[in-house]
Amino acid sequence: MTDKPHFKRIALIGVGLIGSSLARVVRRDGLADEIVGCARRQETRDAILRLDLADSVTEDAAEAATGADLVILCTPVGAYETLARAIGPVLSPGAIVSDVGSVKNSAIEAIAPHLPDNVHLVPAHPIAGTENSGPESGFETLFVDRWTILTPEDGTDAAAVEKIAALWRQTGSMIETMDAEHHDRVLAITSHVPHLIAYTIVGTATDLEERIRSEVIKFAASGFRDFTRIAASDPVMWRDIFLTNKDAVLEMLGRLNEDLSGLQRAIRDGDGESLQSAFARTREIRRSVVEAGQHIPPRNPGDAGS
Amino acid sequence: MTDKPHFKRIALIGVGLIGSSLARVVRRDGLADEIVGCARRQETRDAILRLDLADSVTEDAAEAATGADLVILCTPVGAYETLARAIGPVLSPGAIVSDVGSVKNSAIEAIAPHLPDNVHLVPAHPIAGTENSGPESGFETLFVDRWTILTPEDGTDAAAVEKIAALWRQTGSMIETMDAEHHDRVLAITSHVPHLIAYTIVGTATDLEERIRSEVIKFAASGFRDFTRIAASDPVMWRDIFLTNKDAVLEMLGRLNEDLSGLQRAIRDGDGESLQSAFARTREIRRSVVEAGQHIPPRNPGDAGS
Repeated sequence: MTDKPHFKRIALIGVGLIGSSLARVVRRDGLADEIVGCARRQETRDAILRLDLADSVTEDAAEAATGADLVILCTPVGAYETLARAIGPVLSPGAIVSDVGSVKNSAIEAIAPHLPDNVHLVPAHPIAGTENSGPESGFETLFVDRWTILTPEDGTDAAAVEKIAALWRQTGSMIETMDAEHHDRVLAITSHVPHLIAYTIVGTATDLEERIRSEVIKFAASGFRDFTRIAASDPVMWRDIFLTNKDAVLEMLGRLNEDLSGLQRAIRDGDGESLQSAFARTREIRRSVVEAGQHIPPRNPGDAGS
Repeated sequence: MTDKPHFKRIALIGVGLIGSSLARVVRRDGLADEIVGCARRQETRDAILRLDLADSVTEDAAEAATGADLVILCTPVGAYETLARAIGPVLSPGAIVSDVGSVKNSAIEAIAPHLPDNVHLVPAHPIAGTENSGPESGFETLFVDRWTILTPEDGTDAAAVEKIAALWRQTGSMIETMDAEHHDRVLAITSHVPHLIAYTIVGTATDLEERIRSEVIKFAASGFRDFTRIAASDPVMWRDIFLTNKDAVLEMLGRLNEDLSGLQRAIRDGDGESLQSAFARTREIRRSVVEAGQHIPPRNPGDAGS
């Protein structure tokens, strides 16, 4: 544990669920003299000011980054390269650039080449979220008891890494550091493939004949509910995740397909023994997840619960 | 809406999550003069008496059914035929036989041939559940605002159907009636295939190399959590569901596989447009699920939340 970090000017490029939740913590704990929010849409910029999430807003990333000692990219990963090109030339010496993206290898590839040598890149991924998007959807307890993974490259300035770790600890998050490639494989199986499957199954249901479709909704409590929640996540963010973590996702999807074929065959053959033993061994993982305290979904205090 | 139903003697064959939750409602509202609980394991019978879920217990289904005006099978579907054979000869004229299984066509095929003509078969499926099993895991609010589907065959005694509907309404459940085959197709896509996928993906993760496996647990909040919850459901119950709803499950799985292949191809080809449009259209279904009030998972009041 360290003392509270302090920044002169934090530029949040993109202020959605994650960016706005972080802004709330920075405000609450006085972690910055100044926050500037950068958003493309006027509606979002208005919301940022209305919610007092930043002292000023702009649609120009370079303007936001000018004079900042911390710039955090909180947009979908697909926007990183354009943003890095834009902010690279105006960054102050010693500034830290970070992000909150769900894919880290591509994030580094998109950002690093455009940063001057005297700027520190500390990629971060807070593993927290809800199905909701936009600045109104954030809340300051989103990161409590969740993990934030940092993936700095070898040789990154240790003080810069520690400052970003301290920022995320301040949100209530726990910190883990690993290399970007390993991060992407772990997230492919824990997050990216589950999301792809949830999107697929909800889509498959949408294509069923009208009568079944309405009943799918009515009887969602039977298991489908959890998939619809996952499949309601931001489409652009997820498009970019699959485009940028292609290799790890396709690898994990390949393994999943093999395992699914095995169960499908067992069903076709009426092989109850194989089914039961496959279903029994997954209980163990659930127990471990519960023991690790990662089983309770986040609840926005202002939300009726979803 | 009708008045509270009343039964002389209800025999619950199998007293797990569903059976014990129903018993709690019957006790609370005085819906029966007598409840008899039938369970194979001594441990379960002890728990039933300790929790005061029944007036007496037995391991013999025929003994439980003797003199009962309502017998409800609350075991995995695979046990139905043996149970129906056992109770058929002892059932009182006019008695109602019901169940709570997740598959209805096979349920009817397993039970109906063994019942005397003067007994009424009213299959039911309360669409509610948690990942927990056993008599301790039940709670009396489990069915509130959930649907119970009745699948009586044409010509079934209307008074018997209405009495079972009234019983489930008393639990706080809403009632829908449909034919068994249609039920099985709807549940295949809303429940059975999602469970199969959840089991598969948690199993795939279990098979990954040690280092990734421990991280899968640590970072479960990234989406994996919901799958581990689903994949912790009772293995025997789910084995029987897949064995008895084979055709509908394989049909829906075939559709799902086609759709998944399409998305897999889009990822491989870097086709962002297809991905984004596939992900965008599933939000609509979520909105409908939320509007239908089926989006909030059940919480056992005595549970810290899982």
